[in-house]
Amino acid sequence: MSQPLTATRPTIAGTSLSPLRQPPPLCTFLFLIVLIVATFYTLHHPDAAPPLLFPRNPTHNNPLALRRLFLSSASNATVSSYLRSLTRHPHLAGTKPSLDTLGYVANHFQTLGLDTRLAEYEALLSYPAHVSVAARFSNDTKMEFDLNDVPGGDDVVRPYHAYSPSGSAQGSVVFVNHGEERDYRALESIGVSVRDCVVLARKGESLGRGGIVKVAESKGALGVLIYAENDGGGLGGIERGTVMRGIGDPVSPGWPGVVGGEKLRLEDERVARRFPKIPSLPLSLHNAEIILASLGGSRAPVEWRNSGRIGSGQRVGPGQTAVNMTLQGELTMKKIHNVVATIRGSEEPDRYVILGNHRDAWTYGAVDPNSGTSALLDIGRRFSLLLKSGWRPRRTILLCSWDAEEFGMIGSTEWVEDNVLNLGASAVAYLNVDCAVQGSGFFAGATPQLDGLLLDVLKLVQDPDDVALTVEDTFKSQNNIIERLSRVDSDFSGFLHHAGISSIDMYYGADYPVYHTAFDSYDWMVRNADPFFHRHVAMAGVWGLLGIILADEPVLPFNYISYAEQLQAHIDALSKLLQGKASVDPLSVAIQEFSLVAKEAADEAKKLKEQAYSKNDVAPAAKRRDLNDRMMLAERGFLDSQGIKGKEWFKHLVYGPAAEPESKLGFFPGIADAIATNSSQGIIQHEIWRVARAIQRASKALKGGFT
Amino acid sequence: MSQPLTATRPTIAGTSLSPLRQPPPLCTFLFLIVLIVATFYTLHHPDAAPPLLFPRNPTHNNPLALRRLFLSSASNATVSSYLRSLTRHPHLAGTKPSLDTLGYVANHFQTLGLDTRLAEYEALLSYPAHVSVAARFSNDTKMEFDLNDVPGGDDVVRPYHAYSPSGSAQGSVVFVNHGEERDYRALESIGVSVRDCVVLARKGESLGRGGIVKVAESKGALGVLIYAENDGGGLGGIERGTVMRGIGDPVSPGWPGVVGGEKLRLEDERVARRFPKIPSLPLSLHNAEIILASLGGSRAPVEWRNSGRIGSGQRVGPGQTAVNMTLQGELTMKKIHNVVATIRGSEEPDRYVILGNHRDAWTYGAVDPNSGTSALLDIGRRFSLLLKSGWRPRRTILLCSWDAEEFGMIGSTEWVEDNVLNLGASAVAYLNVDCAVQGSGFFAGATPQLDGLLLDVLKLVQDPDDVALTVEDTFKSQNNIIERLSRVDSDFSGFLHHAGISSIDMYYGADYPVYHTAFDSYDWMVRNADPFFHRHVAMAGVWGLLGIILADEPVLPFNYISYAEQLQAHIDALSKLLQGKASVDPLSVAIQEFSLVAKEAADEAKKLKEQAYSKNDVAPAAKRRDLNDRMMLAERGFLDSQGIKGKEWFKHLVYGPAAEPESKLGFFPGIADAIATNSSQGIIQHEIWRVARAIQRASKALKGGFT
Repeated sequence: MSQPLTATRPTIAGTSLSPLRQPPPLCTFLFLIVLIVATFYTLHHPDAAPPLLFPRNPTHNNPLALRRLFLSSASNATVSSYLRSLTRHPHLAGTKPSLDTLGYVANHFQTLGLDTRLAEYEALLSYPAHVSVAARFSNDTKMEFDLNDVPGGDDVVRPYHAYSPSGSAQGSVVFVNHGEERDYRALESIGVSVRDCVVLARKGESLGRGGIVKVAESKGALGVLIYAENDGGGLGGIERGTVMRGIGDPVSPGWPGVVGGEKLRLEDERVARRFPKIPSLPLSLHNAEIILASLGGSRAPVEWRNSGRIGSGQRVGPGQTAVNMTLQGELTMKKIHNVVATIRGSEEPDRYVILGNHRDAWTYGAVDPNSGTSALLDIGRRFSLLLKSGWRPRRTILLCSWDAEEFGMIGSTEWVEDNVLNLGASAVAYLNVDCAVQGSGFFAGATPQLDGLLLDVLKLVQDPDDVALTVEDTFKSQNNIIERLSRVDSDFSGFLHHAGISSIDMYYGADYPVYHTAFDSYDWMVRNADPFFHRHVAMAGVWGLLGIILADEPVLPFNYISYAEQLQAHIDALSKLLQGKASVDPLSVAIQEFSLVAKEAADEAKKLKEQAYSKNDVAPAAKRRDLNDRMMLAERGFLDSQGIKGKEWFKHLVYGPAAEPESKLGFFPGIADAIATNSSQGIIQHEIWRVARAIQRASKALKGGFT
Repeated sequence: MSQPLTATRPTIAGTSLSPLRQPPPLCTFLFLIVLIVATFYTLHHPDAAPPLLFPRNPTHNNPLALRRLFLSSASNATVSSYLRSLTRHPHLAGTKPSLDTLGYVANHFQTLGLDTRLAEYEALLSYPAHVSVAARFSNDTKMEFDLNDVPGGDDVVRPYHAYSPSGSAQGSVVFVNHGEERDYRALESIGVSVRDCVVLARKGESLGRGGIVKVAESKGALGVLIYAENDGGGLGGIERGTVMRGIGDPVSPGWPGVVGGEKLRLEDERVARRFPKIPSLPLSLHNAEIILASLGGSRAPVEWRNSGRIGSGQRVGPGQTAVNMTLQGELTMKKIHNVVATIRGSEEPDRYVILGNHRDAWTYGAVDPNSGTSALLDIGRRFSLLLKSGWRPRRTILLCSWDAEEFGMIGSTEWVEDNVLNLGASAVAYLNVDCAVQGSGFFAGATPQLDGLLLDVLKLVQDPDDVALTVEDTFKSQNNIIERLSRVDSDFSGFLHHAGISSIDMYYGADYPVYHTAFDSYDWMVRNADPFFHRHVAMAGVWGLLGIILADEPVLPFNYISYAEQLQAHIDALSKLLQGKASVDPLSVAIQEFSLVAKEAADEAKKLKEQAYSKNDVAPAAKRRDLNDRMMLAERGFLDSQGIKGKEWFKHLVYGPAAEPESKLGFFPGIADAIATNSSQGIIQHEIWRVARAIQRASKALKGGFT
C-alpha cells in the first residue's frame, strides 16, 4: 500500500536521523514488517491507487493541483520494494543477472501501460579472468594478497579495473600519493623516479583512477596499484572501476555501436588509445598498508605527510619491497540494453524531456545506481497514475534506463550517438540521477539556465530529514552551490558534452564509503543511507516535478540571465588565473551581448506568459514555440564541431573535461587544458576566441534570425 | 514601364533567336529605344504597378492566382535596366566601385520597403601589383608578353590568379595538357619531367585552375601558366580567377571573419596551406600559342594530339624555350558587404527560404554574376508588389546579395559560418543563382528532394526562346538532367556542404566564352546571350516561384523518395566502380531504411495536405510543422561533424568536393577520395560506413523521435 509523504512525517521527525547512525532495532523491525506488506500489495497491484486520491476528472488545467497530486502519490514503501528487487543479485552489465534487472524495469514500465522499447547495442566490455598480486619484502618474506572484498563471493565480480591490459608487472614499489603530476614533481624533488617500478597510489579528490594510471604510464611505471583510504566504511571493500579513456563503446568511437554496424579491430589505433598500456589493479586499504609499512627509500615529501593516513615517518621507496602483479582480462563484445519508456506529449509531441538513470552495477548497486532506478520506477508509477486521472504532458517525456554505465557511460553514449541529430533538434532537457541516495544532504549540478527552476522545485518538496523544512531550506543552509557539469562521471556526459542538451544531475549524500565495493547492498542502504526511503522519495519528488514542469509549462522555465551571470563569474575567475598572460576581452565582449539577449528573452518570456490565450489559438502557440526553440537551442551554441583538442568527441566548450586536474578551472576545458599544459600565449588566446565564438553562437540561437 | 511576359512573346517568336547569333541591327535599335524609355520610367517608379493588374484585395488564399500575379509582373525592360546600372563599371570586391553596386542593391531593397541589412565581414583579398611574363626562344630572341585583355583598361583589374604567391619563376617550358595527374603520367611515360620547369596548361573540364597549380606544385614545377582555348569568343579575353584552396576568408578559417574577431597571421600554417607555393598566371590563347609553337623536346603523348587546338606535331618541351614570370601580389584585409533583405513570414516567421546571388565581379560582371543580381532585384520588386496587394508569405524569405564570391565564396561562407547554428535549425532551403544567363538552355543542380518541385515550377514558366513551350519542355528535350551539387563554384557551397541546407542552383547557358574576362559586359550580354532579357525573365520567374512555393506551402514540397532513388543510383555506380574491392552492403541496408521512411513521410504529407483545416487550428498546424521540420532536418543528417578527410570544413558526405578529378564519382566525396588515392580496403570500407551512417541519420531525422 502506498504511503504518502505526509503520513510518515512524524516518524522522521521522531527519530531525528543522522545518516550514518543505525536506527534503533525495533524501529527497523517494525518498518520492515510494514514494508513487506506494502511491497506485497504494490507488486501485485503496481498501478493501483486509492480511488479517492485520484478522481477521474481532476482539474489538470491547474498545474498546482497536478503537482500536489504527483507529490501525494509518493510511496517510500514502494520505492524500497523496487530497490530490494533490483539489488537481489549483483548485475554487472553484460552478465546474465543483468538481464533480470532489464526484465524487471522493462516489465514495470510495460505493466504501467507506457510505450516501452529497448534500444540495444553491442559494446566491448571487460571482465577479469585472473588477477594476483604478490609482494616480496626486505626480509625476503613473500606474501600473496587476497584481492577479494567478499569471502568466496563468487557472484560478485572480483575487484578489477575494466579495460586494464592483460599482463604482468614486477618491480619495486613506489608510493606516489594521489598520483597527480604535482606528486611526481614532489618525488622528483627528493630524487625519486618511478621508472620500471610499480606505483602505489591512494585515490584523491581530483584525479580519477584512469587519470592515475595515465600519469603513471607517462612516468615510465610498469604497473599501478590503487587503494581508497575510505575502506568501505571499515568493511574492507575494494573499489572497482573502469580505466578506459573517453566514454562509450571503444570499438565504435563516435558512432552508435548498433548490431551489424561498423566495429573497429582491437589493434586499430583509435581503439588502442582508449586503453592504458600498463596493468593496474585496486587494492584494499589493509593490503596497501602492509606494503606502505614495508617501504624503504626516501621519506615522503613534506606536503604529503600527516594527510589522511600518511604519517610523518612514511617512506616512499623504491627499496627492497617489490610486487609481482598479474592480470588476465577478458575483452568481449556483449549486447547491452537501454530501456526507453515514452509518455507522448499532447500538444508538442516532438519536443522531449528526458529522465535517465543507469541500471547496471559493479556489485549489488543499491546506491549506485539502483537508488536512482527505484526512484525512476516510482516516477513511472506515479506518472501512470496521473495519466489515468486525465493528465497528458504538453511535451513528450522519456524515462530511460541505461546499461553499461560503469564501463564508461556506454549505454547512454551509444544512444546519444545514435540520436544526436534528433536530440539536438528536439530535446528540451536531460535530467540525470545516478546514485539517488548515498547519504544525507541534497547535491545537484545543472547547466545554469536551469538553476532557477531547480530551486523552485526544491521549494515544493519536503525535506526528508526535517518535517518543518523543504529540500530548498536545507540545501541553502548546507551546500547552497549548484555545481557545474564538467565532470564525466555519469550519463549526462553524452547529453551535455556531446549533444549540448541542457542538463541537471542530482544526488543525496556524497563520498559514501562503499562506492563500487561488494558492500553496496540493500542492507547497507537501509542501515546507513536511507532507512525509511524518505530521501529516495524526496529525490523522486524533485526529479518527477522537474520532468512535469519542463514538459508542461507553455513557456519553458529557462533563465539565460543566470547563464550569463555564471559565464561572467567564470570569465572573472579565468582572468584572475591568467594574470594578463592572454586577453579575456573577446569573452567580455561576447558575454555583454549574451546578457543583453538573455534579458530580451526573459522579457519576451514574461510577456508570453502573461498573454491570455485560448488553447486553440495558433499565433501565440507559434510565438511560444519559437521562443522555446530558441531557449532550447541556445545551449547547442556552446558546442563546437571540432571539440576539445585531444578529446574531440567532447564538443561543449563551456563545460567538459579538462585533462589536467591542476587547472582547477572546472569550466572552459579547452582554455583550461591550454593553460595547464603551459601552451603559448597564442594557443591560449585561440582557445579564448573559440569560447567567445561559442558564446556568440548561443546569443544568436537565443535571439533567432540571422546577422 | 514594365513589360509583362505575354506582351513580348511575338517578338521572341518572330526573331527565333540563336543564342550566339547577333540579332538584326534594326531590331536591336528599336529594342534599345523601348528599353531606354522603360528604364527611365522604372528607375523613377521602382515599385509602380499598373493598378488594374494589382488589385488591393486579391484572392491570395488561392496560390494559383498568386503565382499568376507574380509571373505577370515580370518586366524584361526593368531587368535590363538593373543589369545596365550594375555593370557600368568593373566592381571587383574590395574596390571602391564595388561600393556603388552595394549601394545600388541595398537602396533598391530599401526603396521597396523591405527590411534591409548589411552583414559585413573583414577578409583577406588578393590583388595584382605587378605581373610580367617574358619568353626566350631557341634562336635567343626574347619577347615580353602583353598580359592585359583590354588595351589600357586601367579600371579593369589585369588578369591574375588571386592568392598566387608573389615571386619569380624562371625555367624551360613544358606543356602539360590539362594539368591532371594522368597528363603527368603520360609525360612520364615519354620520359618528360616538369621538375624545375614552368608548366603551360590549357584549362580542361575536370580540373580547375587551383587544381592545375596544386598538381604542378606537387610535380616540382616552379611556376604555372594557364590559358583557355576558348579565347573569349575570339576577343582575346584572359580568364582571371582564384587559386585559393578551400573557401571563405583564409585568415578566419571555420569561423566568421567579423570585424574585431580573431584573425590568424599569414605565417600561420592554417592560413599558409590555403595558398599555392608556386606562382601562376593566366595567359591569352594568342601568347600561349606563341610558346606552344616554339616548344622542342618530345612529341605530345598520343592521347593529347588532335584534341582541341593541339595538332599532331605538337612538341611538349622541355627545350630551349624558357620563360621568366614575375608576380607581385598584394594581400590585404578588406571589408566585404553582404546585403540581406527580409520578408517576414506571417505564420512561421522562424522558418526561412533563402534566395542568394553574389554581386562582386572580376570585371563588369554582366553574366557573372549580375545577370543573377538583376533577376534577384526584379524578384524583390515583384515580391514587393505582391506584398502591397496583400500577400504575406507563410515563412520568412531572405533575398541575399553576397560579396567577394570570386575570391572563394567569401561573403556567403562567412555569413554561413556566422549563422551556422540558426541555419541548421531554421533554413528550409537555399536557392542560388550566380550567372543567371550565359547563353541558351536551362541548367540546374539540386539536392534530390527538390527535383520534383523544380520540375513543377519549370512547367509554370514560359520558355524564353519558344512561345509555345514551357521551360520544362525545353529542359526535358535538351538537358533533362538535374545535376548534383558536388561542385564548389558558387555560393551554395557553404549552405549545402557546410550547413546541410537543401539547395538549388540554376543558370541559363553554359561555358560562355567571356568567362572572367574583360568582355563580360552588358554589351556582350545584349549581343550574345539575352538580347531581349527573356532568359533573365524566365530565370527570375523560376527562382521567384520556387521561393514563393517553398515559403507558402503549408506542407513543404520535399520529396525524399527522389532522394532515396538518387542515393540508390549512386550506390549502384559506386558498386560498379569498386568491383568488389569493398562492400557496399552497409549502404544498401541504410538506403532500404531510408526508402521506407521516405515513403512514410510522403504518405504523411499526402494525408496532411488532404486534411481540411481552418487557419486557426492548432493541432494540424503542429503536425505540419513537425513533418516540415523533419523534412528540413533530414538533409542535415548527411553532415558529419568530422567532415571529409583533409578538407574537414566540408561536412556533407553525399555531395561535396572530391580531391581527385579522376574519381569521377561526383558524389560520396570521402569514398571517392579514398578510392582515387588507392587507399587500403579498410579505409575505403570505413568511408562507406560513414556514408551509411549519414544516411541512417537522415532516416532518423525524417522519421523523428528516438531509437
